[in-house]
Amino acid sequence: MQDYTPPLDDISFLLDRVLDLPALLETERFAELDPEVVHEAIEAAGTFIAEVIAPTNAIGDEMGTQLQPDGTMVTPDGFKEAYAKLVEAGWGALTFDPAYGGGGFPETVGIVLQEFMVSSNMAFSMAPLLTQGSIHAINSVADELVTETYLAKLVSGEWTGTMNLTEPEAGSDVGALRTKAVPNDDGSWAITGSKIYISWGDHDMAENVIHLVLARTPDAPPGTKGISCFVVPKIMVNDDGSLGEPNDLKVVSVEHKMGINASPTCTMSFGDEGGATGWLLGNEFDGMRVMFVMMNMARLSVGVQGLGLAERTLQGALSYANERVQGKVVGTPKEDRTSPIVGHPDVRRMLLDMRSLTEAMRGICLMNAVAMDRAGSLADEDARQAAEDLNELLIPITKAWCTDMGVEVTSLAIQVYGGMGFVEETGVSQFFRDARIAPIYEGTNGIQAMDLVGRKLPMRSGGVVTDTIADIRATAAALSADDELAGIGARLAEATDALDEATQWIFGHAGEIRDVLAGATPYLRMWGLVVGGWVLGKSALAAAEWAADDGPADFCAEKVRTARWFADQHLSTVVGLTARATSGASLMDEASL
Amino acid sequence: MQDYTPPLDDISFLLDRVLDLPALLETERFAELDPEVVHEAIEAAGTFIAEVIAPTNAIGDEMGTQLQPDGTMVTPDGFKEAYAKLVEAGWGALTFDPAYGGGGFPETVGIVLQEFMVSSNMAFSMAPLLTQGSIHAINSVADELVTETYLAKLVSGEWTGTMNLTEPEAGSDVGALRTKAVPNDDGSWAITGSKIYISWGDHDMAENVIHLVLARTPDAPPGTKGISCFVVPKIMVNDDGSLGEPNDLKVVSVEHKMGINASPTCTMSFGDEGGATGWLLGNEFDGMRVMFVMMNMARLSVGVQGLGLAERTLQGALSYANERVQGKVVGTPKEDRTSPIVGHPDVRRMLLDMRSLTEAMRGICLMNAVAMDRAGSLADEDARQAAEDLNELLIPITKAWCTDMGVEVTSLAIQVYGGMGFVEETGVSQFFRDARIAPIYEGTNGIQAMDLVGRKLPMRSGGVVTDTIADIRATAAALSADDELAGIGARLAEATDALDEATQWIFGHAGEIRDVLAGATPYLRMWGLVVGGWVLGKSALAAAEWAADDGPADFCAEKVRTARWFADQHLSTVVGLTARATSGASLMDEASL
Repeated sequence: MQDYTPPLDDISFLLDRVLDLPALLETERFAELDPEVVHEAIEAAGTFIAEVIAPTNAIGDEMGTQLQPDGTMVTPDGFKEAYAKLVEAGWGALTFDPAYGGGGFPETVGIVLQEFMVSSNMAFSMAPLLTQGSIHAINSVADELVTETYLAKLVSGEWTGTMNLTEPEAGSDVGALRTKAVPNDDGSWAITGSKIYISWGDHDMAENVIHLVLARTPDAPPGTKGISCFVVPKIMVNDDGSLGEPNDLKVVSVEHKMGINASPTCTMSFGDEGGATGWLLGNEFDGMRVMFVMMNMARLSVGVQGLGLAERTLQGALSYANERVQGKVVGTPKEDRTSPIVGHPDVRRMLLDMRSLTEAMRGICLMNAVAMDRAGSLADEDARQAAEDLNELLIPITKAWCTDMGVEVTSLAIQVYGGMGFVEETGVSQFFRDARIAPIYEGTNGIQAMDLVGRKLPMRSGGVVTDTIADIRATAAALSADDELAGIGARLAEATDALDEATQWIFGHAGEIRDVLAGATPYLRMWGLVVGGWVLGKSALAAAEWAADDGPADFCAEKVRTARWFADQHLSTVVGLTARATSGASLMDEASL
Repeated sequence: MQDYTPPLDDISFLLDRVLDLPALLETERFAELDPEVVHEAIEAAGTFIAEVIAPTNAIGDEMGTQLQPDGTMVTPDGFKEAYAKLVEAGWGALTFDPAYGGGGFPETVGIVLQEFMVSSNMAFSMAPLLTQGSIHAINSVADELVTETYLAKLVSGEWTGTMNLTEPEAGSDVGALRTKAVPNDDGSWAITGSKIYISWGDHDMAENVIHLVLARTPDAPPGTKGISCFVVPKIMVNDDGSLGEPNDLKVVSVEHKMGINASPTCTMSFGDEGGATGWLLGNEFDGMRVMFVMMNMARLSVGVQGLGLAERTLQGALSYANERVQGKVVGTPKEDRTSPIVGHPDVRRMLLDMRSLTEAMRGICLMNAVAMDRAGSLADEDARQAAEDLNELLIPITKAWCTDMGVEVTSLAIQVYGGMGFVEETGVSQFFRDARIAPIYEGTNGIQAMDLVGRKLPMRSGGVVTDTIADIRATAAALSADDELAGIGARLAEATDALDEATQWIFGHAGEIRDVLAGATPYLRMWGLVVGGWVLGKSALAAAEWAADDGPADFCAEKVRTARWFADQHLSTVVGLTARATSGASLMDEASL
């Protein structure tokens, strides 16, 4: 694969002209920032990440992070150095509270950096990502003791964080977990139990690892209501903040996975010597609430993983298709016996599918991020609620659709490379292998679809969905009013009608939950395509406006073409998903499986 | 993954009741066979393959076939022994001419065995598969010298064969190859050049490897017209048939790939010491003709790879979903806090998609194989030509659609397994990694789509396609005439209308080849879905008939349900592909890529 180049122009265009970042920056909360500062930060971070993190990707895949016989965990060559530079540069702290050393930037900017990190090295990027999740969780309860002890070190990245949820019998069903917490005399708790699939459960890049562990206290009620969250450091922290003795926890084994090899997926054992020492985060039985605090951000970030891998392989495939000479392109002069494969219609189709899907993913991720930031910063109550509603609606769509498309786009990249794509040294197959985890973790995409139909559709008795569909129709109408863009508008309107039809079917079957769940995944796919078409439609409108106002003609024309491609090739398939979304459960329940 | 079980009931049902194998066996060519003998052979081969070949799969992936410092190639543990047993059992010879030790069985039976082999170990299966290709090629020219020397040893499997086509600058564009052949004084030729991506280019399972090598003779015209095919043994064969000196060829390196690790993908060097000795197969410049002889069979076999991997992971996912307890299933009694995940609607959807796609793939592969056999055995000239036409039309559809669905179904399997699916030890990810090569080799799926619109649609001035669409409509009508099956008939008719519309569009744009090629891949996808729905529709009709005639009620009911699922969930998406197939090339050609 060629070097990675952060797609700064695309991001600036989206943020400034499509998603109205400038308006967000005018809110009280971001009063210290302005668009110029934000774009400078994005550009500098992009340069840093491309130069420092991206070179670690291939070696990370090859070596993996390994558990040594002495129990220590060793990261691939170059990881420690790259991580140290990241901490020094401070990019991981950009979106956090300045009171703890953060930069006070919007989450939207963090999401942009997350894309760069994933494009550069997804496995590596998960260490700071999990740390950010821990910060959100700890921040949410504002327990002074815990906050003072841990927050600044996590914000700076000197320490990293993990989430310990899953157990062998408790995966999607978190409520089934069995890890125990028993109170000690000094206000701390003794934690015992096993956790699996703990990403970055231990490593050698930071001097301490802070585990957030879900566990049951004595006499806790069964299910999710009886779960509490504990902060359990790898190394005990003395009162003066210095490091003390190792805690009673260890990595038992590391999974051998299909991808993200450098991100160690650990089986952790807590309390083999009697109990790991932990501190309750918030109140007893607050565990699920704490998890939910960081869940939206985590799901958005996993959606961005699909985007980041897609962007990286799009860059590679475009470059390869322009270099690789093979076969005569139909329509070229007779004397050209061979041409770069970018000339072949089928290769152009794959590249345009890759590009339009990637830009749609970026549009969805950033639209979601901006909604999240607006929900946390707008002064007007109604506007803030509307932003929060959109954020909640988009989260499962962003997570599931973007991760599915991450697999799709990286697979298309392999196809563009042909036989070379199947050879590991080419590098593209790693992105495909890495991509395959994202539809699984942080709530499988099936869980996302259940969340969409079970929790999000009922919001405001269906009002949120109805309003969003109305907003999409308004964009379609604006497109249709412009002769140049009317084709996009027609496709968007047609797809939105199909989505509306399926939505009405679900509202009409609210009492028959199995019927609704039977089609939830295809229904979510319809949403992903329509929201992708919506944001690209907005993008086409913005590009046309900019072009009329002396914007860069080629750039603007290409944005319109990308939107048109997505409309013709992808929005057009939405109507064909209606039957899949609305078939009900009777046939599947008759089947013997 | 649990053990592999050959799906004998499904295959028998398809062969006997849907595809009319008994009629094929009544032809002169297969006079010595009857259905009972055929089914006994299939069952015995299935048992052998499941017991002897399947256990080599995981270790094969882990160890790979490795090039040693001394230049020899060592296969994974157990491969030599398994291969020796395969040769001893003689299953590789089943479909070949009894004159050379073959069994004289129809290719259809060979395709059934190929499915078993791929389900058991795709990488291993490629050694006998390539040997079979060599046999077809050598057989086609009937050169006595070459035939006598090599054929019996290849049929028995004592020696294996390879195809040496690809060079660094000659992949999809075979005509660009540069390997040279210069005549020696004794009628042999001296071959020099490099070949890449040579599967099973060398190994330790057989005492000789017979390479078929495409090369250019002196003064050969450029392009594909100047290509000749040579037989080049690894070890020279003496006049008495014994082995002599090593030939002047070697493996230079072996690719490190994403999958099929046990199948060594070799870079071969011919003639480093002055020239490898080869013999012309057929006449000079016959190279492409010889390749075309085996191309249809090879493409069908690669389609079967998608099928075989899908079947294997379907079995695994069904088993896992019935064992894995997680979460409470909607609609079950309150006291059941958890249930096997097979009860969750979204899991049922995935399993039914997997099953219906897999059965559609099997139906397409075997329908194609039967057409091939009928083309080679029917007495009636018109019927034979019709069978040959159907065979030619189906080949690109079988190859491309089944290999794409192989990736899709193995990916669904990973999703059913959840986090376990991403862990290599579970075994399912290997099938997904293995599956990803099949859309690339033996003519990329883009090449298949070009073949469909460029070579197959014009057959008999469109008559073959038109007749096939009429045949499909007849099946739809028969389904619609049955109250129980009318829903399937309606879906099939609707999808066929969409396919017909896209076909007419292509006929109307015959002069604008870039417009046609722009949509060729989505157009092929429409064909795959419609033919899949067609064969499952036939299957539903046959099942209903059998049930009425005292057939096994549950089995027959399940076949109808599978056809209905495919109709509701997959045929229903065909109409949404029309725009993708018929958008033309203008937008893609404007785009800057």
